[in-house]
Amino acid sequence: MNLLNVDTIHETRTKMEKYCPFISPETEQADLIHAAGRILASDLSSVENIPPYRRSTVDGYAVSSMDLGAASEMLPTFLTITGEVMLGSDSSGLKAGSGCCVYTPTGGEVVTGADAVVMTEYCETFGENMLAVSRPASPGENIVQPGEDIRSGEILLRKGRLLTAQDIGTLAAAGFSSVPVFVPWKVSIISTGDELVPPDTVPGPGQIRDVNTYAIAARSIREGLCVVRTAAVKDDWESLLRALESAKADSDIIVLSGGSSKGKKDMSSELIEKVADCGVLTHGIAAKPGKPTITGFDKESRTMFIGLPGHPAAALMVFEQILIRIWRGQTGQSEERTVRAKITVNVQSAPGRRTFQLVTLQETDDTLAIPLFAKSGMISPMTRADGYFEMSENQEGVRAGDLVHVHLWK
Amino acid sequence: MNLLNVDTIHETRTKMEKYCPFISPETEQADLIHAAGRILASDLSSVENIPPYRRSTVDGYAVSSMDLGAASEMLPTFLTITGEVMLGSDSSGLKAGSGCCVYTPTGGEVVTGADAVVMTEYCETFGENMLAVSRPASPGENIVQPGEDIRSGEILLRKGRLLTAQDIGTLAAAGFSSVPVFVPWKVSIISTGDELVPPDTVPGPGQIRDVNTYAIAARSIREGLCVVRTAAVKDDWESLLRALESAKADSDIIVLSGGSSKGKKDMSSELIEKVADCGVLTHGIAAKPGKPTITGFDKESRTMFIGLPGHPAAALMVFEQILIRIWRGQTGQSEERTVRAKITVNVQSAPGRRTFQLVTLQETDDTLAIPLFAKSGMISPMTRADGYFEMSENQEGVRAGDLVHVHLWK
Repeated sequence: MNLLNVDTIHETRTKMEKYCPFISPETEQADLIHAAGRILASDLSSVENIPPYRRSTVDGYAVSSMDLGAASEMLPTFLTITGEVMLGSDSSGLKAGSGCCVYTPTGGEVVTGADAVVMTEYCETFGENMLAVSRPASPGENIVQPGEDIRSGEILLRKGRLLTAQDIGTLAAAGFSSVPVFVPWKVSIISTGDELVPPDTVPGPGQIRDVNTYAIAARSIREGLCVVRTAAVKDDWESLLRALESAKADSDIIVLSGGSSKGKKDMSSELIEKVADCGVLTHGIAAKPGKPTITGFDKESRTMFIGLPGHPAAALMVFEQILIRIWRGQTGQSEERTVRAKITVNVQSAPGRRTFQLVTLQETDDTLAIPLFAKSGMISPMTRADGYFEMSENQEGVRAGDLVHVHLWK
Repeated sequence: MNLLNVDTIHETRTKMEKYCPFISPETEQADLIHAAGRILASDLSSVENIPPYRRSTVDGYAVSSMDLGAASEMLPTFLTITGEVMLGSDSSGLKAGSGCCVYTPTGGEVVTGADAVVMTEYCETFGENMLAVSRPASPGENIVQPGEDIRSGEILLRKGRLLTAQDIGTLAAAGFSSVPVFVPWKVSIISTGDELVPPDTVPGPGQIRDVNTYAIAARSIREGLCVVRTAAVKDDWESLLRALESAKADSDIIVLSGGSSKGKKDMSSELIEKVADCGVLTHGIAAKPGKPTITGFDKESRTMFIGLPGHPAAALMVFEQILIRIWRGQTGQSEERTVRAKITVNVQSAPGRRTFQLVTLQETDDTLAIPLFAKSGMISPMTRADGYFEMSENQEGVRAGDLVHVHLWK
């Protein structure tokens, strides 16, 4: 790997995104309840006014404000109760005004002739159908106008929205029982390395447990992507070739995860060159950690390839910065989901490379980011860290007290 | 509903939590990859040292630091290469020191006799097995000691942890192929109200779409709870009784969602009194919005009951503040997940009631919380809001510039 030929993270994404027209995420209709957490695939507009009619916000009596004049506790106004609005029933036959009023529960339609609703607290009934009202009302009082909540034609939610439970409620109100969402990209993770053993095996001499397959799969699932395959493959050319060829058939992303030694990376690069018709796009990125990253693309099967560095924290950061960001870009997720924090000490960056620094967050008067320094390849710091921030290629580092934008681990 | 007999939110939770010994969430083993996003059900300790042996953090040569003395570019030290550590193979036969060194890739075991690894950048090979080293090494250099990453017996992750992808990686490293997690509570949502129609129906006169069933179901799912049933039930005593009785059999939580009119709430209360052997626990809470909330408990079937207010935003806030918080408490999730923000204007609270205020967040030099005022029962503001903050029962309000803790919508 030649340090002079490495790409920046940005260049790496750009080279891959050139091929994104081939891999635009598809869309599907998702059942409303299960759409929370999914990404909306188009702008959604309301085709109705909500509420469709004038709606009372209180339990009270629909009146004409003119009838009440200067009603007071000392001198209440007396009205005739001519009916009651029942939720779920047609109230078009009822009328208020000219000394008449209509009982209207919260959410009920405000009937013709009324321009205000007086809360029951200010009313007293006498006999069968007489009401004493002890205060005046102003026009529009306690009424939501048609379309005041949601206007017909109004864009409710935009493409790229990560749908919340609240959005689901709003969509239900506007009459959507299902919504268009993006179909998650399918991810295959192929781990290579004869030294790798699964988590439930005690490593023998020279062996090490496979961490990245599990971390990258979990991270993919947390992002809403679909993991179709995790396969540990023997460290030989033919087996790996077969595994990649068969993964191409049903994957949008193939992650090659394995040892980070030089020989292994060379093989990953040759493998991608062999199975991907556009070959290797990036061979080495200007990032610390994360340098030994390889990407490629196969146009025929529409598959992105990424060979990740061996160190788990580095693999996760590179996976987020390249593939998760491409996914978010392709699905219109513009929102930057970071937390602003004050860095507690000076941190140097690696000259010419995008530098990622693990941090823990602490809440005091400010939100503090405390750098977590660890020897290369250590695993537990990534669990102790709350996330990481980036220093750009041209930045010499950050000074104690600077604000940094922390990507939270997910 | 008598304002004098209402409970605070805290009292409401406490009354329910009295019965929590009956409904402690069960635990199950989750496959490692699919455990991200689940809640860890017990402390997990490592039974091994990670790394189990002294591990090199670089590609280089394992040496005895004593052999190098004051090696420099001008005056390199010459060593004999006696072997190579191969990842995946036993290297116990190899030795360094006394003028000998061993090639060691990143992640490889540092062999007996060596106390440092010199990066290949500072080495030059000559002939078959001679190495010139151009700088000295200090003991321990480029070596991770056994247990330095994870110490045997060390608690890796504590009960109540919302597992991240990073945690999954750490657990894989420590030898866990599955982990104990809490079994999500089962939620049934029963909507009542003859005026309610499903989202795909255009409401007729006096009708309104059912919003809360969808919003509460989506919110439950986002929290990791299991929605076993959403049922729209006719507004009569016998139908509702049957629906509740059958939901009792397989639910931990039964949510009664429906119109917020007085008559309806009275029926909810009588229904809970009838089907729950401990009866109604709370009838009305000192909250704004959210007053018409009812809770109950059935000991025999171990079921919590909650009748939610009709307004969607209120229903969601009450559901989060009561049941989601009880779930988090019972599963040991102590972390407060709020965002600190500066409120932009004075906001009054309702005297004696916990007041919830919707806000949108804006990032400037500070994170600003901008209150979102809307007429009672309006739906779209909950989608426009990023979340809400609370003002306690004894607080008169907040002043512009005060810090508030915003619960983000999910």
